[in-house]
Amino acid sequence: MLLRPAMSTTSSHWDRFQKFFVRYPQMGFSIDISRMSFEDGLFESQAASVEKAFSAMKELEAGSIANPDEGRMVGHYWLRDSSLAPTAELKTEIDATLAATLSFAADVHSGKVLAANGQKFTRVLIVGIGGSALGPQLVAQAITPANPPMAIDFFDNTDPDGMDRIVAQIGAEFATTLTLVISKSGGTKETRNGMLEAQAAYTAQGVDFTKHVVAITGLDSELDKLAVAQGWLARFPMWDWVGGRTSVMSAVGTLAAALQGVDVTQFLAGAAAMDAETRQRPVRENAAMLLALMWYSAGKGKGAKDMVVLPYKDRLVLFSKYLQQLVMESLGKEHDLDGNIVNQGIAVYGNKGSTDQHAYVQQLRDGVNNFFAVFIQVAKARDTAGFEVEPGYTSGDYLQGFLRGTRTALADKGRESITLSISEVSAFSLGMLVGLFERAVGFYATLVNINAYHQPGVEAGKKAATDFLKQMGQVLASLPASGGGATADEIAAQLGIDAEDAWHMASHLAANGKARLAEGASPVSDRFSAL
Amino acid sequence: MLLRPAMSTTSSHWDRFQKFFVRYPQMGFSIDISRMSFEDGLFESQAASVEKAFSAMKELEAGSIANPDEGRMVGHYWLRDSSLAPTAELKTEIDATLAATLSFAADVHSGKVLAANGQKFTRVLIVGIGGSALGPQLVAQAITPANPPMAIDFFDNTDPDGMDRIVAQIGAEFATTLTLVISKSGGTKETRNGMLEAQAAYTAQGVDFTKHVVAITGLDSELDKLAVAQGWLARFPMWDWVGGRTSVMSAVGTLAAALQGVDVTQFLAGAAAMDAETRQRPVRENAAMLLALMWYSAGKGKGAKDMVVLPYKDRLVLFSKYLQQLVMESLGKEHDLDGNIVNQGIAVYGNKGSTDQHAYVQQLRDGVNNFFAVFIQVAKARDTAGFEVEPGYTSGDYLQGFLRGTRTALADKGRESITLSISEVSAFSLGMLVGLFERAVGFYATLVNINAYHQPGVEAGKKAATDFLKQMGQVLASLPASGGGATADEIAAQLGIDAEDAWHMASHLAANGKARLAEGASPVSDRFSAL
Repeated sequence: MLLRPAMSTTSSHWDRFQKFFVRYPQMGFSIDISRMSFEDGLFESQAASVEKAFSAMKELEAGSIANPDEGRMVGHYWLRDSSLAPTAELKTEIDATLAATLSFAADVHSGKVLAANGQKFTRVLIVGIGGSALGPQLVAQAITPANPPMAIDFFDNTDPDGMDRIVAQIGAEFATTLTLVISKSGGTKETRNGMLEAQAAYTAQGVDFTKHVVAITGLDSELDKLAVAQGWLARFPMWDWVGGRTSVMSAVGTLAAALQGVDVTQFLAGAAAMDAETRQRPVRENAAMLLALMWYSAGKGKGAKDMVVLPYKDRLVLFSKYLQQLVMESLGKEHDLDGNIVNQGIAVYGNKGSTDQHAYVQQLRDGVNNFFAVFIQVAKARDTAGFEVEPGYTSGDYLQGFLRGTRTALADKGRESITLSISEVSAFSLGMLVGLFERAVGFYATLVNINAYHQPGVEAGKKAATDFLKQMGQVLASLPASGGGATADEIAAQLGIDAEDAWHMASHLAANGKARLAEGASPVSDRFSAL
Repeated sequence: MLLRPAMSTTSSHWDRFQKFFVRYPQMGFSIDISRMSFEDGLFESQAASVEKAFSAMKELEAGSIANPDEGRMVGHYWLRDSSLAPTAELKTEIDATLAATLSFAADVHSGKVLAANGQKFTRVLIVGIGGSALGPQLVAQAITPANPPMAIDFFDNTDPDGMDRIVAQIGAEFATTLTLVISKSGGTKETRNGMLEAQAAYTAQGVDFTKHVVAITGLDSELDKLAVAQGWLARFPMWDWVGGRTSVMSAVGTLAAALQGVDVTQFLAGAAAMDAETRQRPVRENAAMLLALMWYSAGKGKGAKDMVVLPYKDRLVLFSKYLQQLVMESLGKEHDLDGNIVNQGIAVYGNKGSTDQHAYVQQLRDGVNNFFAVFIQVAKARDTAGFEVEPGYTSGDYLQGFLRGTRTALADKGRESITLSISEVSAFSLGMLVGLFERAVGFYATLVNINAYHQPGVEAGKKAATDFLKQMGQVLASLPASGGGATADEIAAQLGIDAEDAWHMASHLAANGKARLAEGASPVSDRFSAL
């Protein structure tokens, strides 16, 4: 039997709301699952799985090899409560690294650490991708002051044009720009390329890159060795027991946050507080387990519904992108822990309300019912007194009205939603939200019996890219210098490679000034030659 | 029979690629549908629908009432080729409005139009939401110079905190900031609130708002009347035959673009060129119809698969958000044209490659197969000469390698993808892409027999929000000033409203300094009183 919310606006859900509303008053947090249509017996039918998930989390936090494929511990919860770390050495290392990032940031602010020209640093450039960028981007958008002590930019791709734009915007200010190169493995190609592009930009401005750059990477990685060899300004460690998508509370996130004036201690405290609540509480009061169960119910344990994340607050606009990585990379798996092919996952998207009401809420209400929404409500509208936009009402009242109105409009059409509420957007509350979803992901992974902590599927694309680039080098070398050039078929036959690949490689070379193209009526008759 | 791409990387798709590759060489554009798994007989089985779609588009362009529910023509194609406009008056109005926006922007740049303090304007603030913000945001991100003549900010919500942050960032520069208030209807509440917040910010800086503000709205709308009454700097018209989500080539988009130094004429020319190609070409050479048919095939005509948009170019990162509105608001419909309940739509999300490979490509390759990808390839890597990051290879080669590698890795696992290619990111090519998807949406709507040009589902949320706000005012007035306060049940009983609503309203008032809350053990025992 389904406890579907009634389809009329006039019938009350007050009883159901009270039954499925949980708040942690001391943290200003609540979760409301009353507009989800889960089965009446969900909690009973999932009781054994829930117990298993609690146990698995307990073992993970105690230092078990929770990521079996990679033979690794999973320790991001220790980052905000180092007393959980399984050894004294790890505790010391966590504490020392945090202290070192905060101290370094303070030294940059005070001028103890200066740019090569003797002036204070004014900007930060982060070179990193995936988990090495999304966390710092979220923090920069959500909880830095409106005019932070240091401006921030990102090289989060290997797009030369994108980097050229940022270089043009920083311009002469490279003289006082501090660059953080962030790569856990120290071998990520996009980040290596970004580092070299940054170095070239510094050099073009006559600035010594090595005196402006910090490495955040695994000890003795390729990047770490380079930083040592070139005498970089500082180095901070990443550990193999922290995944990129859960690294925002390691040096990856804390250094950039501290440089931008964020209260890092509060950020960690918020996550630790949520960890503590969702470690101790039974399932019906456990926000992370409730989330995991709602995901399970909505998607039938198979990701059958997308999660649409709708924070009603501009500063949280990147939270959906952050969750997109956290959830999809953690849960999007081919195999379960027993080796069965399961093709799991939950697709995640969203931006912010009420803006998205003017974009795609039309489809959410009227269109294909392939999603559940997660509203994020922020109780406090603004820091200042503000004013009334019409008698009795402020802009913030409207924001709240639109959230409530959209939640009702969706429920009236049988579209499910969860509502999370926080008292304000602060370092503490953002930490809470990050912790909440990290734990929900961990719990859900046990409910569907998968490893949430590896990402085996991304290697295939890297391998195919490497093959493509290697063959492209061969294509370049093989192009005839004279005559009418060669077709893709001819190039492919000569090199023993695929003709379509050859055509794409030669086309790329031609588009970028490394080959000549005489375009035919179709790809098969295009002719490529050396310059 | 399904023509699925073979599952091995070693088998060639060269023949299939050639069969399903279409390029428009003079425009530097191509589309590759060879990695879609459509049925062999798709083109034949859909032939009648395709003809109907071509006819419907022809009638629409000729000025038919293509939006029957609202009794309106649909004229966004006329904006880039005014010779199509069904009357001479409309043609004149389109031409005159475009000329007026370009002329106004030139006057701002030259200093013929100045700020109240006699200085040149240095910044633009856009107040608008949905189609009145997404188009200008896309243009600002994609095709403005790296250091545009005027910086740009957006109030695209009714979040007071978000606006406070932008106000703090603009600071004293409000003295030289030009504000564009954009609302087709002239009655959008978020935009009204944003306008008032902007006005307050100007006033706080001692600047006369009315001398710094321009209206873009329907003639004689509430906003238009206000602009006349207050003697605003300028007014530009919006028309009821242009939808918000297709307004980027009206004054909504052209004025902001011109102020930022975009070649607006080329932007329109790109769209006009794509319109012309996809108006004349038969289905197998028609990029817009091919897109529509691929959407139909992938989602079985019911939106069963999400569209994941992956432009490999930083400047196109907002294109997926733009398409999210265009596609989901156009196609997400409850009823078909015959009144049947169909719950149509296609969910759209995405950011950019290769960045997203480090976020959710794990799920795309290994996880739930509920999507098709649209790769957008940009042939030219960068404007400058650049340099090699390792012998023989540039950052741009890597970007291309990752695109090709990911396309292959997805295809190897039976995940479908389309690849669009443009020669470079320019005003012309962005215009092409916008035109392409607008026409694909139009064609697809006919294939599934829906009205792509209305948005009836968004009214319910607005109505519910209005009700919520009205009742919240009643709650505020009803709160007891003394004694122990009232519970939600007591407030609800007194006012004859829903108790859950009363609790949310009173909670919001308490969180924002308008009521006092004595928190109980649960919502039912919370007590609210007047301050």
